[in-house]
Amino acid sequence: MSYSKWILCLILHYLNTVKALEFHHSHPRITLSAKDASFWRHSRNGSHTRAELLQGPRVNSIYVGGHRKLFLMDFQNSSRSKEVTMFENECRNHKLPGTCEYDITMVHAVKGGSSLFVCGTNGIQPVCCYMTLSKGDFGPCSVELAEGIAPFYVKEKAPSLYIGDELYTTANLYVQGDGVGIRRHYGKRGRISSSANKTEQRFVGLAVSGPRADPLQDRIYGFVVERSMDQHPEADPWISRVIQVCKADSGGTKSILERLWTSRLSTRLYCGITEKKLHFSYLLDVTVLHADSWRDSRVYALFTNGWGMRAVCVYTMGAIDQVFMNSDFKNSVGSVSKNRSRMCVENSKALPREVLRQMKDYQEMEDWVRPLKDHAPFLVSHRHYRHIRADKVTGRGLTQHTVLFLSLGNGAVHKVLEQADHPFIIAELRPFRNKTHIQNMLLQPSVKKLYVSSSTEVMELDLYDCQSYGHWCEECVKARDPYCGWDGTKCTAASGNEIQDIEHGNCTVCEGAGKNGKYTPPREVYSVSPSAKFFLQCPMLSSHALYSWHHKGRLIECLIVESQCLLLIENMSTELQGNYSCVASEGGYERTQVQYELRTEGKARRLASSLSTFVCLLVTQTLLI
Amino acid sequence: MSYSKWILCLILHYLNTVKALEFHHSHPRITLSAKDASFWRHSRNGSHTRAELLQGPRVNSIYVGGHRKLFLMDFQNSSRSKEVTMFENECRNHKLPGTCEYDITMVHAVKGGSSLFVCGTNGIQPVCCYMTLSKGDFGPCSVELAEGIAPFYVKEKAPSLYIGDELYTTANLYVQGDGVGIRRHYGKRGRISSSANKTEQRFVGLAVSGPRADPLQDRIYGFVVERSMDQHPEADPWISRVIQVCKADSGGTKSILERLWTSRLSTRLYCGITEKKLHFSYLLDVTVLHADSWRDSRVYALFTNGWGMRAVCVYTMGAIDQVFMNSDFKNSVGSVSKNRSRMCVENSKALPREVLRQMKDYQEMEDWVRPLKDHAPFLVSHRHYRHIRADKVTGRGLTQHTVLFLSLGNGAVHKVLEQADHPFIIAELRPFRNKTHIQNMLLQPSVKKLYVSSSTEVMELDLYDCQSYGHWCEECVKARDPYCGWDGTKCTAASGNEIQDIEHGNCTVCEGAGKNGKYTPPREVYSVSPSAKFFLQCPMLSSHALYSWHHKGRLIECLIVESQCLLLIENMSTELQGNYSCVASEGGYERTQVQYELRTEGKARRLASSLSTFVCLLVTQTLLI
Repeated sequence: MSYSKWILCLILHYLNTVKALEFHHSHPRITLSAKDASFWRHSRNGSHTRAELLQGPRVNSIYVGGHRKLFLMDFQNSSRSKEVTMFENECRNHKLPGTCEYDITMVHAVKGGSSLFVCGTNGIQPVCCYMTLSKGDFGPCSVELAEGIAPFYVKEKAPSLYIGDELYTTANLYVQGDGVGIRRHYGKRGRISSSANKTEQRFVGLAVSGPRADPLQDRIYGFVVERSMDQHPEADPWISRVIQVCKADSGGTKSILERLWTSRLSTRLYCGITEKKLHFSYLLDVTVLHADSWRDSRVYALFTNGWGMRAVCVYTMGAIDQVFMNSDFKNSVGSVSKNRSRMCVENSKALPREVLRQMKDYQEMEDWVRPLKDHAPFLVSHRHYRHIRADKVTGRGLTQHTVLFLSLGNGAVHKVLEQADHPFIIAELRPFRNKTHIQNMLLQPSVKKLYVSSSTEVMELDLYDCQSYGHWCEECVKARDPYCGWDGTKCTAASGNEIQDIEHGNCTVCEGAGKNGKYTPPREVYSVSPSAKFFLQCPMLSSHALYSWHHKGRLIECLIVESQCLLLIENMSTELQGNYSCVASEGGYERTQVQYELRTEGKARRLASSLSTFVCLLVTQTLLI
Repeated sequence: MSYSKWILCLILHYLNTVKALEFHHSHPRITLSAKDASFWRHSRNGSHTRAELLQGPRVNSIYVGGHRKLFLMDFQNSSRSKEVTMFENECRNHKLPGTCEYDITMVHAVKGGSSLFVCGTNGIQPVCCYMTLSKGDFGPCSVELAEGIAPFYVKEKAPSLYIGDELYTTANLYVQGDGVGIRRHYGKRGRISSSANKTEQRFVGLAVSGPRADPLQDRIYGFVVERSMDQHPEADPWISRVIQVCKADSGGTKSILERLWTSRLSTRLYCGITEKKLHFSYLLDVTVLHADSWRDSRVYALFTNGWGMRAVCVYTMGAIDQVFMNSDFKNSVGSVSKNRSRMCVENSKALPREVLRQMKDYQEMEDWVRPLKDHAPFLVSHRHYRHIRADKVTGRGLTQHTVLFLSLGNGAVHKVLEQADHPFIIAELRPFRNKTHIQNMLLQPSVKKLYVSSSTEVMELDLYDCQSYGHWCEECVKARDPYCGWDGTKCTAASGNEIQDIEHGNCTVCEGAGKNGKYTPPREVYSVSPSAKFFLQCPMLSSHALYSWHHKGRLIECLIVESQCLLLIENMSTELQGNYSCVASEGGYERTQVQYELRTEGKARRLASSLSTFVCLLVTQTLLI
């Protein structure tokens, strides 16, 4: 190929890149609203600015923190639902912003679930308390001040983890802001903080990297977005990072790193298409799917960029660990990268002065953490996703599938199948009656329920809701939902033996599986007056199917309006009589959705027409008089 | 505001940036296809890979270069259209790519329009010739080899200018590619080239910066996109530049810059939102709108970025000149920036050795050329624009308006009003019957015609086509088309006295202007059988208007399908009888678009119904027998 052609080719390739990336299966196959699927509703008794969600004491129950109140919502038996008012105080100063906010910002289960640890803003004087639960009832809660533990403001997001008797937090240390970092509280090993960060930071997630063979080596990973200090005119204003600390860390000595992490390391969490210089720098949300071996645990991270686009990048804990264990240190010279310790130690206070000095001076890695598989995003989209959750589902023959749940700006949730080549959006779930802002999502993998909270309601979504896909084997298989399979008579919750083909949605697996094959819907017959207007409607269940009308061997394109394929008849005539069928065609599978027969009325009709024309003329004349 | 709230505010602001940018008036107000407007068609007699367009000898005529052929298309009198086969040669080697391409790549009018200068690829052996035109007939054309003047390949785009007796070109110098740069040929001052560029380049446009008070100072500006040599991981792979050379330049001496430009300067042409780090680095097309004073002449540049988005940035010639005259030189030390000459000189061959050495060593400016008005793009869009043209239109009271024409990937053209705050897309013009790729556009400002070429056709678009906006003053004013105005009886070509309000489209200017005020369309009456299906249709002319149905004081939302507002009646009943009006509301102006009256048929109807039911039953029984 000549040089100039090569340039041209390159230019065309460049112009086509994003098109190919974005629009590949970016539409959910089906859309399910409250009328199509079983969503369970629970009111939050008022309007709340945030929603802290925690698994409840029973199946189908959750704790929900809100404005002044903690709820126990039971979706199976609403009479067991409860609420308690917490941290109620009078407003000390109405004029300062945030001083009248009394909202729950943290709810953790502690002591094997027998108690709750609850924190609230308490009018910019954060407090926490341990509440004993007795027979499912809220007990009393003795309040302690919690500055540096819980957020000062209702809108301050600060992920936290309660592991054993230790609490890891990321809230602001001071009411004026600043002092963001991973901190540990309570427990035997005492409080450890992070040294002040040089730039604005916001923590998005906290996770344990473990359990490892040697528990001493267990780490906590913090996922954070921070303002970039890169002065290059094209550098993104934000960068995302993962930060590690050792669980076993007990800080340094009086002179170096006293009560500060000695094991803190940080690296860039990269999401983008490197060779095309297309980047997603702003981390929005993160979720971890733990595997049997900690190295295989996966981090699903949702990013955005300056254009408002979204990308999901997937990383393994192993890849993150690899960077922390082997990368050179940034700005390090000579032997530092080899010698500076990266292992967790039993007693960090006993480390030699020189080791501690290195731990203080070198915390940033040269290498970046890059996503799995070709180092490219798993999904790129123009949709305004805000939260991400991930679930592992066991399908036919014990195959494991991962399903992601991505919340949208309008109150909907996308159920997305993770597969090798490209994402498949199984469904758009619309649990709320109106457009709303989703504040939080909680996945209960053991019972396959998803809880979604708006400011006024919490919805329970049954992930095993399989009936909505249809009543035929082919429809069930085409859905490609790992939660569902065909049991010979209906589309039902998959337990390992049902018929499904998650990888390809190939209907041939249905052969001989009962209630499969060509389905013919009943034909509706209409008599239509000559010259009258008439319309035919056909519901479009799958957005991946092509729908069209067939009449006397002629194919008529749909007029698509609100998931309906319409056929408008402006002027009925004898030629337009006959059978109309609406055919859906999806990946080789064809299906007649509805059938109509239209007839023009005979002589009697014509009489009626002329009569009605006469009436019309009469009326017109009356109006003119 | 507290620090943490400030961060949150910043984040939200960041997330909302692009939304606000993109979707502001990004829909054309109206859409005009061949059935709504007057487009004139001319076949290209076959399929062509490129289209060179040049103003013809008469109004409504153009020259069109294509595959082996030069056409003269006359849109007023097609019998005056002509074509001539040019550069016809046999294929020397079918196997090498490009060797069998015989396409016209350049057409210029020379010698006051009495001759044409035509070039073609001639099977990778480019040739040009001067063709004398006699009485509108194509004369003979004596061919010369033109390597380094005309492109080798049909897909190689290389803008050129013929000014006086001098030809400025930007084609590849070698058949293998490379050697791209501004070159001058013919004329008294002789051939001057550019030194080899260090990176891939593609010229997008060439323009004269002048005429200046002192013609010696006239310059040629080249607009170019090139591969960036910035190694920063976030630097865009492309950058766009403007390059200047002096018209008077005659090159250097034997030892320095012999037959090379001594006046070449180059600078970055920036398009983007600096503070948000949102950049458009890849220049796609450029057009210049000359003003009375050369400094006020405007450059309209169309850019894209890695996401496939588009932006239009506007620059003044004055701003470009400002950078070339005053910016420091890149990588210069000490006094170079002050001393290195930037003026055009009468005889560059006579310049001192030291001056020439500086002219060779310092050609790149430190400062960038930034767009007019807040340094931000005039338009940001997800539409796949490919070409840009600009026209100046004189409106009421001699106000000057600028209208841009942007071609789309599907064969449509957007007519866009340039205004202070944000662009207003007056119309989407769809001249072609099918979706097609637009190869080129030519604007004829003197007669207000736009020529648009696909591979098989050339369309003439009358920019004065004002009837399509409607037959009422309000509709004409709402269109905000500077080419059109209300003359008291119809919407017509604006000549300066017509009623219009281009800035705001405020209909109050219509008061007392004849045929204004509330228009009531005739009411159509339909008799509909009880229980029958029926639908009402209302054409949606303006996408900026809100349409709805009104029935017995109730407002019914539209079902929107293909620019129609539908109302579907599933089951006719007496309650659904009565008047229906479809009301369009646009910026305070309300208008009833269509009116229907529906009646259920009376006794006679019921009789007919039962009769027809009887017929149905009869038919069904017949079928069953």
